[in-house]
Amino acid sequence: MNKRIVGNILGKVLLIEAALMLLPLTCSALYGESVLPFLWPMLMLCAAGLLLTRLKADGDLYAREGFVCVGASWVLMSAFGSLPFVFSGDIPNWIEAFFETVSGFTTTGATILPAVEGLHRGVMFWRLFTHWIGGMGVLVFIMAVLPTSGAHYMHIMRAEVPGPTVGKLAPRIRKTARILYLIYIALTLLEMVLLLFGGMSFYEALLHAFATAGTGGFSTRNASIAAFDSVYIEMVIAVFMMIFGVNFNVYFLLLLGQVRSVAKSEELRTYLGIVAASTLLIAANIASRAGGFGQGLRYAFFQVNTIMSTTGFGTADFDAWPEFSRFLLFLLMFVGGCAGSTAGGMKLSRVLILLKSWAFELKKLVLPSRVRRIWFESRPVEDETVKSVHVFFAAYMMVLLLCGLVLSLDGMDFTTNLTASLACISNVGPGLSAVGPAGNYAMFSPLSKLVLSLEMLLGRLEIFPMMYLFSPKVWMRR
Amino acid sequence: MNKRIVGNILGKVLLIEAALMLLPLTCSALYGESVLPFLWPMLMLCAAGLLLTRLKADGDLYAREGFVCVGASWVLMSAFGSLPFVFSGDIPNWIEAFFETVSGFTTTGATILPAVEGLHRGVMFWRLFTHWIGGMGVLVFIMAVLPTSGAHYMHIMRAEVPGPTVGKLAPRIRKTARILYLIYIALTLLEMVLLLFGGMSFYEALLHAFATAGTGGFSTRNASIAAFDSVYIEMVIAVFMMIFGVNFNVYFLLLLGQVRSVAKSEELRTYLGIVAASTLLIAANIASRAGGFGQGLRYAFFQVNTIMSTTGFGTADFDAWPEFSRFLLFLLMFVGGCAGSTAGGMKLSRVLILLKSWAFELKKLVLPSRVRRIWFESRPVEDETVKSVHVFFAAYMMVLLLCGLVLSLDGMDFTTNLTASLACISNVGPGLSAVGPAGNYAMFSPLSKLVLSLEMLLGRLEIFPMMYLFSPKVWMRR
Repeated sequence: MNKRIVGNILGKVLLIEAALMLLPLTCSALYGESVLPFLWPMLMLCAAGLLLTRLKADGDLYAREGFVCVGASWVLMSAFGSLPFVFSGDIPNWIEAFFETVSGFTTTGATILPAVEGLHRGVMFWRLFTHWIGGMGVLVFIMAVLPTSGAHYMHIMRAEVPGPTVGKLAPRIRKTARILYLIYIALTLLEMVLLLFGGMSFYEALLHAFATAGTGGFSTRNASIAAFDSVYIEMVIAVFMMIFGVNFNVYFLLLLGQVRSVAKSEELRTYLGIVAASTLLIAANIASRAGGFGQGLRYAFFQVNTIMSTTGFGTADFDAWPEFSRFLLFLLMFVGGCAGSTAGGMKLSRVLILLKSWAFELKKLVLPSRVRRIWFESRPVEDETVKSVHVFFAAYMMVLLLCGLVLSLDGMDFTTNLTASLACISNVGPGLSAVGPAGNYAMFSPLSKLVLSLEMLLGRLEIFPMMYLFSPKVWMRR
Repeated sequence: MNKRIVGNILGKVLLIEAALMLLPLTCSALYGESVLPFLWPMLMLCAAGLLLTRLKADGDLYAREGFVCVGASWVLMSAFGSLPFVFSGDIPNWIEAFFETVSGFTTTGATILPAVEGLHRGVMFWRLFTHWIGGMGVLVFIMAVLPTSGAHYMHIMRAEVPGPTVGKLAPRIRKTARILYLIYIALTLLEMVLLLFGGMSFYEALLHAFATAGTGGFSTRNASIAAFDSVYIEMVIAVFMMIFGVNFNVYFLLLLGQVRSVAKSEELRTYLGIVAASTLLIAANIASRAGGFGQGLRYAFFQVNTIMSTTGFGTADFDAWPEFSRFLLFLLMFVGGCAGSTAGGMKLSRVLILLKSWAFELKKLVLPSRVRRIWFESRPVEDETVKSVHVFFAAYMMVLLLCGLVLSLDGMDFTTNLTASLACISNVGPGLSAVGPAGNYAMFSPLSKLVLSLEMLLGRLEIFPMMYLFSPKVWMRR
């Protein structure tokens, strides 16, 4: 383990976080609030960051250094990022502030706040801005803006960008990172402008665009998107949730004019197919209580997109819907969005590879001589990838179930425990029962809140970087 | 596909089923009940069986024929096996009778009967006897008793005996099948004798020994084992449930005096460890409501064994226990017993291989040069086995979740739908909420009952033989 290069990169992460806090600080200043809740953390971040960046970043960055960098920087960012909540007095309890910050950075959107409308403006800005930072990943950001030496930064990208494989958009990793961030910024601004047209204030339009882009789900309103009571705003946000749940490679290919290869994308077609089918099924299922199929479609389309993209905004309390709709949304929480998007969950491409490997094993029994490989996106899938998808799935399910067991110590009901665990590891936010859209995570014990925070990090970083961080062997050997 | 050899073997299965019905028929006669509910099905079985066995069984039996044999014979056995319930009038609805019979043969023990004490004596005998038949498997029985030609009968064994791999106890498959059945019969008789000492009638002792041996869970009493109100009977049954949840190779090795290799068995040690740990945790969790830690231990030990061995007998309504105990039992429903036992679930050896492959992938990241293979039971595990375990797990979870979605159409609560699906695919029987120990499966729609029947068969035959049966390609090609 090359600890110096890890330290150097962590230092850069902390300095970037300090720089990013300038925005909520400015917001606080503009609204006449105290800037101290941001000034103090910024000073601490700068001190720690400068100290760490004095370490010489020589030598190469291998997979293990990449994993430790990503795991440790997300934990540190969240620890420092929770300070404004504590210093401002908005969330005085440090564990709750940590939970809220992890929920922000991991774009989960699970909250311990029963009501959010009383928060300071600057703190609220920071709360929703963390979604945007975490959505694309701060290390990808560093790669995009800082000159990086060494050819092994792909390992970091692989650990921070979700999905079974990472598509390099450009031969150089730095260029790939820049393209991703440019698309991200452009789409965020576009959504903000469209929300302004819907009559939102600049402040709320910007923050909701942040929260949508990261597929986070925090809102400035207690009633989430329902508070705006506007079909236009709901549809803009629903469509953008869908957009941010799609692999960013799609947008890059569209920019290059390669519409045909986009139209052929298996993952995209399946994604849109699932959204369409689930919307219709749920609309039919809730039509009578929603006041007709049309209203049903409106709520269903929004809720399907909010769950599938793992955002977690709400316009309706789907926990009160019929069981079929609840169970279907529960299934969508597992799936999540596409690989290479800002969405969470298992990722659709993984689910497809799982299904294909199942069909493959069956076919192999019938016609052993005719079957050679699994194909996905018109390419054969490496055995190593299939294996890693399976290991990921097993690890995902085991973390989900074991954390559910820890939560059950608090005495909440079964549905709450299971879906809270799922909603956190899938970075969705709302689950069912007590953690449904009308509920929140305040009632869990401090232990459960820490476990859920860990799950959110495991989910966002796709398990291995975080597991890696906690395996003692990593630290004992060179 | 060699359809003639498949037909021939199916014919033998039906004839064996006719022969096995002699026992409940005798029971009916002894208790002065009509023997017609068994006589008619026996005639039908004989007719169909004789017709099919006229097909010449020449040619070889490959994996696909083996799979189709096993899948088809379980469906046929269940269809014919449900006739006594219908003809006797005890379960007039054919779908419900089919559900009950599948539940019997697959040793699930899920019932649609709100009360069982009014059943005819002969029908009750058949109901619990199906557990015993299904526990070890009727095809294994055929291999044990009939002269079989061809060297490929291993494929049938592999499809019917649970677990990721099958241990051949003897060089010849027929001898292995005989050893398994002899151990099975001896243990069943031993349990029956011990239950007689506890004051049970011969009839009930025999039937409960059948149901324990198959890890089934049907009982002659509405209140299940609680009805006997005897600590002795509870402990005998609990210990035997544990015994039947263990790989039968263990008993074979014990007979050979190889105590040391038994003591080294990873799966056995983990199994006993999980039983002990879960019993202690649950006993502590329920102590206050059970009236002290001692009483807690009594209920916990029984319930942990009933779930872990996927039997499903009851002495307490664990659905009313604190959430932690409920969630822990829910987790044990996934795990199930050991490979090569009569228990259901994923099987402990698969869970261990999943955990090991997870640890293996982590280690490979840290020390890529040092890690070569996964070891289990002091032997390296083939890559092909690891892969098949992963595919099995993914298929298991997907069947479980998708069937849960179908159940949700009936409007039962989330916990009921999810745990009913789990309790059926794991062949446990009782789940939580409405399908808890105090409930039953009567309220589900006919569609749901068929889906649950399919799940029980998928679970008992470990998914692939049943999936195989329904893939059209199997039937279209040679």
